[in-house]
Amino acid sequence: MTKPKYLTGDNAAINEFIDQFDVFLLDCDGVIWSGDHVFEGVPETLELLRSRGKKVVFVTNNSTKSRQEYLKKFTGLGIPSDVEEIFGSAYSSAIYISRILQLPPTQKKVFVIGEAGIENELRSENVPFIGGTDPAFRRDITPEDCQGIADGSLLDPEVGCVLAGLDFHINYLKLSHALQYLRRGAVFLATNVDSTFPMNHNFFPGAGSISAPLIYMTGGQQPVALGKPSQAMMDAVEGKFQLDRARTCMVGDRLNTDIKFGIEGRLGGTLAVLTGVSKVADWEAEDAVAVPAFYVDKLSDLGAVARE
Amino acid sequence: MTKPKYLTGDNAAINEFIDQFDVFLLDCDGVIWSGDHVFEGVPETLELLRSRGKKVVFVTNNSTKSRQEYLKKFTGLGIPSDVEEIFGSAYSSAIYISRILQLPPTQKKVFVIGEAGIENELRSENVPFIGGTDPAFRRDITPEDCQGIADGSLLDPEVGCVLAGLDFHINYLKLSHALQYLRRGAVFLATNVDSTFPMNHNFFPGAGSISAPLIYMTGGQQPVALGKPSQAMMDAVEGKFQLDRARTCMVGDRLNTDIKFGIEGRLGGTLAVLTGVSKVADWEAEDAVAVPAFYVDKLSDLGAVARE
Repeated sequence: MTKPKYLTGDNAAINEFIDQFDVFLLDCDGVIWSGDHVFEGVPETLELLRSRGKKVVFVTNNSTKSRQEYLKKFTGLGIPSDVEEIFGSAYSSAIYISRILQLPPTQKKVFVIGEAGIENELRSENVPFIGGTDPAFRRDITPEDCQGIADGSLLDPEVGCVLAGLDFHINYLKLSHALQYLRRGAVFLATNVDSTFPMNHNFFPGAGSISAPLIYMTGGQQPVALGKPSQAMMDAVEGKFQLDRARTCMVGDRLNTDIKFGIEGRLGGTLAVLTGVSKVADWEAEDAVAVPAFYVDKLSDLGAVARE
Repeated sequence: MTKPKYLTGDNAAINEFIDQFDVFLLDCDGVIWSGDHVFEGVPETLELLRSRGKKVVFVTNNSTKSRQEYLKKFTGLGIPSDVEEIFGSAYSSAIYISRILQLPPTQKKVFVIGEAGIENELRSENVPFIGGTDPAFRRDITPEDCQGIADGSLLDPEVGCVLAGLDFHINYLKLSHALQYLRRGAVFLATNVDSTFPMNHNFFPGAGSISAPLIYMTGGQQPVALGKPSQAMMDAVEGKFQLDRARTCMVGDRLNTDIKFGIEGRLGGTLAVLTGVSKVADWEAEDAVAVPAFYVDKLSDLGAVARE
């Protein structure tokens, strides 16, 4: 196993590194920011990459925000960006459904468990859906619901797909509907299967905690996951940006999502940053899930070459 | 593998079968009733067993009802019974916590995900708890919750155990609390891990769908399950009734819970009924999860010997 190259403080190596690539795919939380705190020097580093003619694409598993909502966050945090540079798992799911998944004409509807980000991206791709943030599904289950779900009278016969993403309003009613649709043969998708979600410098239930009960209830039916490290997301990124994988580098803080995503996608390179979840010891471990090609202490270390 | 003995219609065999045992452990749903419909002849069959001096114990994984609430159901359905004959997974959990689990004196509290049945049984064993049906936990998560859960100010330092059972009011707030308690080292228990729950002649999310996300979020931490087929439940049943396992028979409709429970508990016998989930083909399959020693079409077939 090759040891990753440490770039921090080595301007010659940083220049060589940057020159190797045309496209940088960047994870957000743990790389660009932590929650609502942008890491110092990151906006300048992104500008440096752009000024050298590099394309930057923000690739995030967070499905609760649409690209438009992400753009607002970038702008609010003082990071110039464009909606076309943003690629989230909600968008990834929407284009997978609209362009790759061939649902029968009579079963085009998606039953959504998740937040508005998913709904907005499905709308942008003209995918019909039910569930999501609809107040009709944000409530306790009633005996009438149980009867109607059990006998099918409350189920929509046009639903051909269940899409499970992080839902701060998960409940028994939604899980019961999803179970029945899956038992009736609906395609099972997950925006992503992250076990946890970073908030307030701690860990909360991630999108995978929404699909986990569905997997268990159906006796092990596995969803197609549309977030990192799933290569379905890489295919979608490649399809949209027409990138040359050999000239593309994935930048992230997590070995099991970001770095794995880049390696399995046979990208030209992977860069780990130490401002998030994974640490040096993680890739030096015997059973490391993935080893990056390069690493820096923090993303802004790349910016040192602009200050020479 | 021995073929199970078919008893229906063979009165000599039925008499011999009954004489072999002093105690009959009976599953409820699929054996005694389906939902709110009692199978014909079952009350008479239970009376027959009692008249022959047999002890009957109803052993159910359903944690949403306490023994008292179960007694009401039995009475309402015209089945004479006594609270001491009822053994549910909520009660099993309560006695496991109070009598077997040695929680440190400063961490005696249980964080409950589940319905009133669990609370009532914990109260009967004087186990302190929070969560459960408390309206403070039956609502959407707020930014203040996220902050307080993340920094620990909203967590109860006396919680030393998380007990996960079927909860028709499952939500993100409860899952977030449970995750933090588990990360802080709380003991992880589940009333049972049934994948589905029978209602209205169909399948709904079972108690296992509550623990599944917690297992996934914690990176694979497994709960001690207190329902069938867990032998923790058998130990609790044995402790309470002082039964002779060799003279005890488990009666049920599911191979993977009831019959497995009896076999792994080294009971003298297991009897499958065909009024519920499992069918003859299930135990005749190459990879059968468990094979009963005896089977009948329906529980009341045993009653034929009283009508001779």
